[in-house]
Amino acid sequence: MTSIKDVAREVSLSTATVSRALRGLRGVSDENRTRVTEAAQRLGYVPSPSAVGLASGQTNMVAVIVPHVSRWFFGEVVQGAEEVLRAAGYDLLLYNLAGEPAARHRVFQTGLLSKRVDAVLVLGLRPTAQEQARLAQLGRPVAIVGAAATDLYSVSIDDELAARLATTHLVDLGHRRIGYVGGSLDTLDYIAPSARLAGYRAVLRERGIRHYRELEDVGEFTVAGGGAAARRLLTGPERPTAIFAASDEMAIGVLRATRELGLSVPGDLSVVGIDDYELAEFFDLTTVAQPVREQGRRGAERVLAELLGVRRRTESEVLPVELVVRASTAPPATER
Amino acid sequence: MTSIKDVAREVSLSTATVSRALRGLRGVSDENRTRVTEAAQRLGYVPSPSAVGLASGQTNMVAVIVPHVSRWFFGEVVQGAEEVLRAAGYDLLLYNLAGEPAARHRVFQTGLLSKRVDAVLVLGLRPTAQEQARLAQLGRPVAIVGAAATDLYSVSIDDELAARLATTHLVDLGHRRIGYVGGSLDTLDYIAPSARLAGYRAVLRERGIRHYRELEDVGEFTVAGGGAAARRLLTGPERPTAIFAASDEMAIGVLRATRELGLSVPGDLSVVGIDDYELAEFFDLTTVAQPVREQGRRGAERVLAELLGVRRRTESEVLPVELVVRASTAPPATER
Repeated sequence: MTSIKDVAREVSLSTATVSRALRGLRGVSDENRTRVTEAAQRLGYVPSPSAVGLASGQTNMVAVIVPHVSRWFFGEVVQGAEEVLRAAGYDLLLYNLAGEPAARHRVFQTGLLSKRVDAVLVLGLRPTAQEQARLAQLGRPVAIVGAAATDLYSVSIDDELAARLATTHLVDLGHRRIGYVGGSLDTLDYIAPSARLAGYRAVLRERGIRHYRELEDVGEFTVAGGGAAARRLLTGPERPTAIFAASDEMAIGVLRATRELGLSVPGDLSVVGIDDYELAEFFDLTTVAQPVREQGRRGAERVLAELLGVRRRTESEVLPVELVVRASTAPPATER
Repeated sequence: MTSIKDVAREVSLSTATVSRALRGLRGVSDENRTRVTEAAQRLGYVPSPSAVGLASGQTNMVAVIVPHVSRWFFGEVVQGAEEVLRAAGYDLLLYNLAGEPAARHRVFQTGLLSKRVDAVLVLGLRPTAQEQARLAQLGRPVAIVGAAATDLYSVSIDDELAARLATTHLVDLGHRRIGYVGGSLDTLDYIAPSARLAGYRAVLRERGIRHYRELEDVGEFTVAGGGAAARRLLTGPERPTAIFAASDEMAIGVLRATRELGLSVPGDLSVVGIDDYELAEFFDLTTVAQPVREQGRRGAERVLAELLGVRRRTESEVLPVELVVRASTAPPATER
């Protein structure tokens, strides 16, 4: 069987350079990369990641655990993480939970990740105590991205602050019946939804505004779910003058439902979201902007720094958010 | 070191059942799965994928090569493929090319995939002859998803037909100056953009309609790119009365630019896209609908069938498309 030494001899380069060339890493000239690739093909050399993994204990793979791969937020985070990992020669093993408990069990509890990856990125959810213990058993760098964690490094926004900014903006405009469209209350381990709900409730309480439990609804973080929630809120007995949706995609669903009911924004209803995603400006949506791809980058940089043995502060990072006021919010009609 | 036999003995089950339980596969009762997981943890048993890979030649991983992970289309395809692969106990190794030639070279040409994966899904691009040869050398099942291929199995729509449906609809409404917003012409190996451009040109030719080269522009398959292209087309010397955008995201960019220029849809400009993506109905966008998640499912099912040795027809699959007429298209103003 052809070994990497045979290839190195053929092209008169070191085995380290041949290895870098074949793995697509930097520090190899285009000319040498072409020579190495051609020689490896000619000689029939095939590196075996399994053998490399057994010998070095390294797999050059990083697990990325995603609640829903087809949601905008997670696509952006994966993109940011992937850019950083690829530049360092790491591949990305994607685990999509798709909201299924069985998938979550398999990823966290079955030893699946052991010896398979060098590091783990967990996106948008807070592992349970049991899951954290299993992650610790791996002995690998772990980063939580897009959710705050207590015992593990995490990079996220302050979700409660984001919700406070949105709700305070509506209160300052004079709104008193403010609806909330968020995530399911069953998924309390997904920290963002519960922290955002907490921020909304805290502002109402602090400002002495009556809290209507029936003005809180579930939009499942999708456009369709946001629309369904808004239809229920806008046809109920306590029609709100404003709705705070805990994501821009839900906020756009709210805009759609409002239009379908023959109501105008912001004349009959003010709407504010969180994200500042690609289409927020198009919809003139007032929102709380967060840096999403940057969260993916930071999480990846963090586990890489640990893998390379670089000492870094272990504190979690909280990235800034900013209220962006556009045309979807205004004082309530009764105030004008 | 604890072996799988130790775990099997501990719980009085076969090693096959223990293996299935630990890999999260079906056919194991919840009770047995819990007993196996607990016993494995108690005994400190950790399956080594590297060792398994060397012994069996199998890695239980499928490579998914994606041009842009944060685009709607690819997120949906990955979701569809992942559902099928996960149910069969396979993990998904994600390679995002992000439009970078170096990343493409690394994935296709460096032997990276050898012995690392059991099968390969290539999304949205047609491999070059050299890349096809490398894929064939892997000796693994390969499926091209979302692009038609000649020598390999592929599942896709007929992109030229989709473009023909969209363009014919505009011609039938009476439009004669029809703009086109598509992908970069440099990336001819991404088959969808070039096939869609070909369909647009073919309909103009067959219907005897003058073809303005200056009415073809590049929108990069993003909302922002579609908007920039529309601004150029709508402020140029030959302002079109209709624009066919080769994706819904670009079409939405066209709608935004049209509104910013003080023009109305469909009064001043008809707009048609391709996809029928999540927000198409919200925008009242006329479009050519395609089944996206289904393409991911079919590609994954195909490589699984080959892995399991199931004989299947090797012909590529072409899924149906359908024109969905909404309010963004109408006869040109001069016709009314």
